Amino acid sequence: MNMWVTGANGFIGRHLVRVLADQGNRVHGIGHGAIGEAERRRIGLEHWLNGEIDAANLNALAERSELPSTIFHLAGGSSVGLSIEQPYEDFSRTVNSTVRLLEWMRRSASECRLIVASSAAVYGAHHSGKIPEHAELRPVSPYGHHKLMMEQLCKSYAACFAVESTVVRLFSVYGAFLRKQLLWDMCSRLQRGQRELVLGGTGDELRDWVHVNDVARLLSSFAARRQQEKFQAINGGCGEGTTVAEVADVVTKSWGGEAGVRFSGVVRPGDPFSLVADDRKVRALPFAWGVPLSQGIADYVRWFKEDAR
Amino acid sequence: MNMWVTGANGFIGRHLVRVLADQGNRVHGIGHGAIGEAERRRIGLEHWLNGEIDAANLNALAERSELPSTIFHLAGGSSVGLSIEQPYEDFSRTVNSTVRLLEWMRRSASECRLIVASSAAVYGAHHSGKIPEHAELRPVSPYGHHKLMMEQLCKSYAACFAVESTVVRLFSVYGAFLRKQLLWDMCSRLQRGQRELVLGGTGDELRDWVHVNDVARLLSSFAARRQQEKFQAINGGCGEGTTVAEVADVVTKSWGGEAGVRFSGVVRPGDPFSLVADDRKVRALPFAWGVPLSQGIADYVRWFKEDAR
Repeated sequence: MNMWVTGANGFIGRHLVRVLADQGNRVHGIGHGAIGEAERRRIGLEHWLNGEIDAANLNALAERSELPSTIFHLAGGSSVGLSIEQPYEDFSRTVNSTVRLLEWMRRSASECRLIVASSAAVYGAHHSGKIPEHAELRPVSPYGHHKLMMEQLCKSYAACFAVESTVVRLFSVYGAFLRKQLLWDMCSRLQRGQRELVLGGTGDELRDWVHVNDVARLLSSFAARRQQEKFQAINGGCGEGTTVAEVADVVTKSWGGEAGVRFSGVVRPGDPFSLVADDRKVRALPFAWGVPLSQGIADYVRWFKEDAR
Repeated sequence: MNMWVTGANGFIGRHLVRVLADQGNRVHGIGHGAIGEAERRRIGLEHWLNGEIDAANLNALAERSELPSTIFHLAGGSSVGLSIEQPYEDFSRTVNSTVRLLEWMRRSASECRLIVASSAAVYGAHHSGKIPEHAELRPVSPYGHHKLMMEQLCKSYAACFAVESTVVRLFSVYGAFLRKQLLWDMCSRLQRGQRELVLGGTGDELRDWVHVNDVARLLSSFAARRQQEKFQAINGGCGEGTTVAEVADVVTKSWGGEAGVRFSGVVRPGDPFSLVADDRKVRALPFAWGVPLSQGIADYVRWFKEDAR
């Protein structure tokens, strides 16, 4: 099948392209960032259009390849912090790219399926326990607000124009090539020789960690699924809450040698205490998560030591 | 006070500008559409910038006038039908104008208050009875979806950047200079000599009719009110449901002569059966609606016959 990935140059995008290509699909991408020829072939991309997601560029990509059967929409803001520093930029990346893509699909590829990477940030910080998809959506950051607006657009185009979409609300995705957040920060400090790591927060924060290989497999699986409703939202989380302290412990153990971790107790405003998926819907697809957290972290540490230049 | 009105060239905008100017404010406007000099003075606008709502134009307006104490944001899509024909255009008018305005305020006028005209369309078509502000928001049309996204942006900028806003969800606003919808269509047909009017729907549809003079007064009143929360949404409806058949009856009676009205029974998909405000919040401001429906319609018919060229 002919499949497109927006934001194919990003952390999840590159993993997804590899999975899709390995399944025998022809994969084309659009989004920001230069990808060299060798690199493009290595990750499995047939065409890469480095540019804004707009009608002109989407038409150009369609001419070079052909109309896609499925588009995976991964382009968009990817940092809560940046969304606070530059909310307009985050809005443009997330919301404007989505409306332009949907409008282009409405006019030029209305039979194409759309799989969208959203974020658990749409739920906000007021939930405890496992969060089902129908929970109240009360995001905290501009990042979360804009992801919610992106979902709203998908709903609107599904209901009014029959552009089918599946929105996957991803929880804490980690894995090789993620060059930010907890694992990256810890590994960077351990590599610099620090043996007393002080981390923000209390350490008790609960997150639902999912490995990027599983996430790529989950996203790719929607291409072949018939969906019941024109719009559906589904949690991309495994339903297991693990504290930051536990994760930090696995990181230091995987790294080897002696290292201690302390928590500053300083909680970032708006940072949810608990963000864990109710995973009934994703399990019922059916879908089984494959990578255990301890193994995923060990793999990350190995990647960091060997390949993360 | 120095006040700005976006979309000042629109139906509600022109009424609002007049009210604000009559209260002794200096009123400046920005939005699409040419306004001649004489007309500009007549409606009470000091400056009118005919253009897109973006940082460059907002800066230009600030140079010509001065920074506003309050901005009334009335620019945006104004037609459900057009939003279905051209959803991207409706999105741009409603959502993009709002994010650019909020971003400009965040950087250049963060002390300024923002009063936003939203729509009861954000509620959707599944409510019966009076709709309170905390009701579930499940819009049907792209128009309603985009208004909801506009509200979401206001919420985000209020919570994350302390840009204060009040969103007023307007119900069925009517009055002189409204050149579309039920009253305009009926008067146009009566003037062409039709005496058997066939209207869409069943005639039993309930709407909450509010006169544009009252709406302008309501909107203007927020400039002087302190608000408790950085973001608030409030119904701009009087809480009284009147059927389309009753309204049609008043129109034909006000017009004079003999005329009959029939309903086709064909309901537009997504058209809510009932759209009536729970008005407790607006009454508690306090605010009292002034123009009774029968008088408002009689005034409209008189305006149509005498001035609507």
